[in-house]
Amino acid sequence: VPFKQVENLSHDSLIRRAASLVTDSSSTLLSQTTLALIESIVEYTKAVHTLIALQKRYLASLGKLTPAEEDSIWQVIIGQRAQVNDRHDECSRFESTWVSAVRLCETAAEAAYTSGAEHASITMRTNIQVAQSQVEEAQKLSANADKKLAEAKVMEVERMAQYSSSLENDNGEEEIPEAYLRED
Amino acid sequence: VPFKQVENLSHDSLIRRAASLVTDSSSTLLSQTTLALIESIVEYTKAVHTLIALQKRYLASLGKLTPAEEDSIWQVIIGQRAQVNDRHDECSRFESTWVSAVRLCETAAEAAYTSGAEHASITMRTNIQVAQSQVEEAQKLSANADKKLAEAKVMEVERMAQYSSSLENDNGEEEIPEAYLRED
Repeated sequence: VPFKQVENLSHDSLIRRAASLVTDSSSTLLSQTTLALIESIVEYTKAVHTLIALQKRYLASLGKLTPAEEDSIWQVIIGQRAQVNDRHDECSRFESTWVSAVRLCETAAEAAYTSGAEHASITMRTNIQVAQSQVEEAQKLSANADKKLAEAKVMEVERMAQYSSSLENDNGEEEIPEAYLRED
Repeated sequence: VPFKQVENLSHDSLIRRAASLVTDSSSTLLSQTTLALIESIVEYTKAVHTLIALQKRYLASLGKLTPAEEDSIWQVIIGQRAQVNDRHDECSRFESTWVSAVRLCETAAEAAYTSGAEHASITMRTNIQVAQSQVEEAQKLSANADKKLAEAKVMEVERMAQYSSSLENDNGEEEIPEAYLRED
């Protein structure tokens, strides 16, 4: 066994080095999953804002569109709702990967500490904290978007009620488009 | 962000690669801690067998040695007992490092699985099993040595009692050396 001849390569130092390699690679995994999660949250947030804008535009033009125009705007809104759902699923998927990476990093920090690689352990814990605060920031963005979507929903209900009663006054010829009300 | 231009380097594939790097480095840490633990167990076992041999030699020569010879053999036995204790402490130390490496590897296998790196996850689990069975084999050796040490203890007590009563018959001039009976 050749390394036995080199005094410095004791079991302890080999274990310390190996533990540092684990915290390095765990940090890489943490970065990748953090980036993916943040990007997916940003994309979800964008999709929600686009949906809100589309819904507002539709409500603003209620009664001013031809049936063909209305149909085409519904299609866009329905498509955007599907986008929001897809983005939401992607966030959940990347969130579970990220949570499992954080758990791994915590175990790696413990193993590094037990192996005598205190510095690697401390660095690992710092990296975990940075990742957690980055993800929290991104989650605030999406929470804000969700809030705006809920507010838009309230406005929408009010506007539709208003429009219905104005139609009733005009003898109720026109109806609220059914496709628009679908929640798919 | 340059990697966005390369289709294959999606978040998913980057996460998979990073997760595989973690299982690789965790496997290295597992190997190093397994080797260290097994070597410390082997050294402990050797130290125990040497102690047993020394004690047997002393018992076999009871009453046939000069006080100077007896004194020198006690010194060797006491030194060997200290060796056994040191080796035992080293085993405990490497065992805790090894246990923490195994726990890390289990978490790494989970993270790899969650990240879609199923192959890396399976390899990791196989490596854990191999390490566990290697350590179990080594632990059988030391358990066997411990058993022989306990048997030697019984033999020693019997032999000392025999020797005492033979001395009493000879008017009890000689005594059992006190230093030998110390349990340090």
